[in-house]
Amino acid sequence: MPQPPIRIAIAGALGRMGRQMADAVQADARLALAASFHRPGIVGEALVGRDEALATADVVIDFTTPAASADLARFCAERGGPALVIGSTGFDAAELATDAAKTIAIVRSGSFSLGLNMLVGLVEQAARALDPNDWDVEIVEAHHRHKIDAPSGTALMLGQAAASGRGIELATVARRVRDGVTGPRPPGEIGFAVMRGGSIVGEHSVSFCAEGETVTLSHSAGDRTMFARGAIAAALWVAGRPPGEYDMRDVLGLSDRARRTVRDGIS
Amino acid sequence: MPQPPIRIAIAGALGRMGRQMADAVQADARLALAASFHRPGIVGEALVGRDEALATADVVIDFTTPAASADLARFCAERGGPALVIGSTGFDAAELATDAAKTIAIVRSGSFSLGLNMLVGLVEQAARALDPNDWDVEIVEAHHRHKIDAPSGTALMLGQAAASGRGIELATVARRVRDGVTGPRPPGEIGFAVMRGGSIVGEHSVSFCAEGETVTLSHSAGDRTMFARGAIAAALWVAGRPPGEYDMRDVLGLSDRARRTVRDGIS
Amino acid sequence: MPQPPIRIAIAGALGRMGRQMADAVQADARLALAASFHRPGIVGEALVGRDEALATADVVIDFTTPAASADLARFCAERGGPALVIGSTGFDAAELATDAAKTIAIVRSGSFSLGLNMLVGLVEQAARALDPNDWDVEIVEAHHRHKIDAPSGTALMLGQAAASGRGIELATVARRVRDGVTGPRPPGEIGFAVMRGGSIVGEHSVSFCAEGETVTLSHSAGDRTMFARGAIAAALWVAGRPPGEYDMRDVLGLSDRARRTVRDGIS
Amino acid sequence: MPQPPIRIAIAGALGRMGRQMADAVQADARLALAASFHRPGIVGEALVGRDEALATADVVIDFTTPAASADLARFCAERGGPALVIGSTGFDAAELATDAAKTIAIVRSGSFSLGLNMLVGLVEQAARALDPNDWDVEIVEAHHRHKIDAPSGTALMLGQAAASGRGIELATVARRVRDGVTGPRPPGEIGFAVMRGGSIVGEHSVSFCAEGETVTLSHSAGDRTMFARGAIAAALWVAGRPPGEYDMRDVLGLSDRARRTVRDGIS
Repeated sequence: MPQPPIRIAIAGALGRMGRQMADAVQADARLALAASFHRPGIVGEALVGRDEALATADVVIDFTTPAASADLARFCAERGGPALVIGSTGFDAAELATDAAKTIAIVRSGSFSLGLNMLVGLVEQAARALDPNDWDVEIVEAHHRHKIDAPSGTALMLGQAAASGRGIELATVARRVRDGVTGPRPPGEIGFAVMRGGSIVGEHSVSFCAEGETVTLSHSAGDRTMFARGAIAAALWVAGRPPGEYDMRDVLGLSDRARRTVRDGIS
Repeated sequence: MPQPPIRIAIAGALGRMGRQMADAVQADARLALAASFHRPGIVGEALVGRDEALATADVVIDFTTPAASADLARFCAERGGPALVIGSTGFDAAELATDAAKTIAIVRSGSFSLGLNMLVGLVEQAARALDPNDWDVEIVEAHHRHKIDAPSGTALMLGQAAASGRGIELATVARRVRDGVTGPRPPGEIGFAVMRGGSIVGEHSVSFCAEGETVTLSHSAGDRTMFARGAIAAALWVAGRPPGEYDMRDVLGLSDRARRTVRDGIS
Repeated sequence: MPQPPIRIAIAGALGRMGRQMADAVQADARLALAASFHRPGIVGEALVGRDEALATADVVIDFTTPAASADLARFCAERGGPALVIGSTGFDAAELATDAAKTIAIVRSGSFSLGLNMLVGLVEQAARALDPNDWDVEIVEAHHRHKIDAPSGTALMLGQAAASGRGIELATVARRVRDGVTGPRPPGEIGFAVMRGGSIVGEHSVSFCAEGETVTLSHSAGDRTMFARGAIAAALWVAGRPPGEYDMRDVLGLSDRARRTVRDGIS
Repeated sequence: MPQPPIRIAIAGALGRMGRQMADAVQADARLALAASFHRPGIVGEALVGRDEALATADVVIDFTTPAASADLARFCAERGGPALVIGSTGFDAAELATDAAKTIAIVRSGSFSLGLNMLVGLVEQAARALDPNDWDVEIVEAHHRHKIDAPSGTALMLGQAAASGRGIELATVARRVRDGVTGPRPPGEIGFAVMRGGSIVGEHSVSFCAEGETVTLSHSAGDRTMFARGAIAAALWVAGRPPGEYDMRDVLGLSDRARRTVRDGIS
């Protein structure tokens, strides 16, 4: 007998990401779109009120604003559910979500790309296993010509993952540019290189270079549908999960907590 | 106070790999070359007898033949040490090493490349975490023009790692060639592609391709010094380790056993 | 004083490519959208008749059908202009366009990607310059999971460019698959390798592999806007050009004819 | 009837490159090692005097010092041959070689890698053909951890080739680093990015990035045998050639001069 679909409510249903999420939920046989709501008080044309939406859902997917997400998290915690997938970021949201996570299960992430989160997890592991005296870490990223800063936030996150795997602070070992007479590369350095051109959506690679061999872990983004797909994976994963604050590495089974949770027989 | 160096004996010291290993040990401050021997009975010019060699060593590194390695493993087990790093492969060696591993610690591997072993471990994890319905696995390998078979043994090993992560048999999903009218790619397939040319030492990449994003994990070999370096990492790791049969994924901290061992407070 | 914009008429204006072309023309300051027509006889809502459209244009861009393009080419030739950019392909169109090209300038191509046409031109040159006994040619292509044939038409076109540079027939040297015991790679072979996965729009690379070095020429497609941009480059190039049948390699200045034309003082 | 082999004399035969060249000549059936000499006055064990060596050779290969090469060029010019392949660089050598090239054929190059010279030639052509407003040029290079400057000389040479193809000075458009708030990428810029790690011999890639597509031309060096192979290609090409100063792009048939020479019926 097939499992009944997980019932999803979409918050911020009139926003761009809300509409994308609704489409993605409806295209997935494992999910049912239970209700869409926008803001408390706004109803009409396929929109219901928030209370009504929450009553019918196993999981709410929320890509709105930090304040709205924090408010939603508190409200769901008070009524004992449903679980949450939150894509908005910011300090207040973080704090309030952490409180709410004592009562309900919440997946929060700054990026729902499964591939990028996978890459971050693998980079941290490789950095932990490979001796910094032998293996030089170099991060290369490429983006479209309109991007105005460098290195990309994702490149820095990958650098932090590598530094964390090595038990050091990125700031103490980051080499952000090389130009002119640089001298030989010091062991332990984490280097960055930046390309800008055309309409490249986002390419990131992390190379571990040793004498006679190189391991390269990379991610290439083609379009933005990957974010909706990641949020759906999070919704499938979080439904029925015990209270707690999770991130995409939990969803991917890469975090220590995920392993610990599994070991303790919770899941 | 710095730790005293690990004392290494080299078996098969007159062979090509034996000589490389001796050079690599002497170049590494964390190790001391305690003794070199070739075969029981052969001594002279920097060679000592096997018994004498074993008496002075914490770890023996052995890249000889399956029969010789099996014999050495049994002998070390009988005398209660030293630990072994074995690079020769074959059925008999495997069986006898397994017996000996009840008494002494043995690291055995078909390839001592740290990078390739890392790649295999990461591929298995990524394959376990990423839904086969969404993520297509494709393996590309390139080797020099003299290579006479395809795909490479390493490419197949990577395919097995991906299949194992997904809990299936590689043979049931491997797609070794595509030519002509192939039809659309079935979900779950693990594809192989082969390049041959020039003097390429060995390039392997494993791509996980989804809608809108691709994760690629790859390894590039530049020369054969990587094998000696991996054997040295194994020697450093295995010295003082409890009895057991280990492989390079244990050395890299990637295996379940490694995690279990750590958890159980052994190491 | 800035040059007046080139006046463009769009044939097949109600088709998908016709609409894209109209958008692209309107977004380019060097061009003016003079008129759109669909089929002789269809007028209304921003559409004019064919005769009227041709009277106002320096160049017509036509992505319709072989028969319609052939008819348009003959008609333009009879009235002495305008120049044509034709994206439809097929035997009849080819023949008729060749006749018309005695009177008017026509750019015809099976693919208007500037990058791919550049790649084809560079591959042919490299293949001409690099000794086949020393340099092995290998072509790798990757496409989305829905593609039903292999290798891609573009990969075969690249193979033909390499074979043509070497003065041989591709069919006599193509190695479309490698599996099992292949033996060493014969000199002169042109190898193909195929990846299928996710939503990859199209990746092609041609490697020339020698002892100790590899040259790789590659193209990556991100979306289909590149075709409209190439057609616009063709329109800018062909306006005012003497009668003749041209392709994208002429537009890019890569063909022998282009060099010959320049040398003879025609352009 | 097979052609008789080209007779080669090796200058600086006791140097590292001289010995490599002698090995490479002897391994090539199209060449015969006619004589080896080191410096005027040094003879013995397989070495003859310079005069004797030159009398027996069609081509001299000289990887010595600028001063010695200049002296050799003048001497060969005075006696009307043989042709020269010169791998030493420097101002004096350049000037004197140019004089000598009025009488004899000389191939001079700072790098005899056929692949790198091919890459430089293709980059210049692509840069000439592709509109700088649409196509962003980005150069990425990777070298081993011991390299003390950045970008590499080869990367800068590739940048100059791109700038030359566009008819501009590299210095006016080079973007050597990007860090922090950079603003959007200006059209026409030529960007550089640098990786350092492990024992990477040398990787260079030049990407042309447009809306929706990227063309990448790259070179990967595996070892230093490529230089000897390039010098041999030069020797085969220059034998019997009319007086003149040539470089590797002539040897590869990529230069305008090569085309002109062919057209004029000289070769």
